[in-house]
Amino acid sequence: MPDSTPPLANQACEACRPDSPSVPEADWRPLLGQLDDWEIVKEDGVPMLRRRIAVKNFVAALALATRIGDLAEAEDHHPRLVVEYGSVEVYWWTHAIGGLHRNDFIMAARTDALVL
Amino acid sequence: MPDSTPPLANQACEACRPDSPSVPEADWRPLLGQLDDWEIVKEDGVPMLRRRIAVKNFVAALALATRIGDLAEAEDHHPRLVVEYGSVEVYWWTHAIGGLHRNDFIMAARTDALVL
Repeated sequence: MPDSTPPLANQACEACRPDSPSVPEADWRPLLGQLDDWEIVKEDGVPMLRRRIAVKNFVAALALATRIGDLAEAEDHHPRLVVEYGSVEVYWWTHAIGGLHRNDFIMAARTDALVL
Repeated sequence: MPDSTPPLANQACEACRPDSPSVPEADWRPLLGQLDDWEIVKEDGVPMLRRRIAVKNFVAALALATRIGDLAEAEDHHPRLVVEYGSVEVYWWTHAIGGLHRNDFIMAARTDALVL
């Protein structure tokens, strides 16, 4: 059966409240399959999407962080960005639910689209 | 005896090579005494200066990261910046020597000066 769901990067985020559903663990793998090089890490039991993006230097890292920040502001959903010389590490998760919301996968896909 | 050494923030960084001296551990405490809220943490045995700076939101965090980045570029010495909604965590250390050079304390003092 063809899947008519639009690509993650084209989906809209929805407002996220503490009672919003987290993505069931069984759905993580197929969603990760639509993303570039993301992994799920846990911090104090909270799952987070993480991708390390290599760039050429510090200025490029900060420039990418700023572009991801613009995206974050537009959706009012904010990541953790670890900026170093030569890389940006991006973490998406939803603080309000202590886990992964569908929005986080959407934001990861949009991050990928920025890097392409 | 009065100490005529200028404040850390007014000292110049010197070019750092792998054979540059690291700051002896006995000198860490007096140097930390000249800084705001920095602590020394170790990561894989490498000591790093760390300060978490609270700001009001994500835009303010990214703006502060950009200002610290400008400082870093000017000295060609680059920190790790962890940008989140409401905070920037700054790490200074010297990769080339696997530890803390005097430059790192100077850059920490200059970071403090940006925040004031």
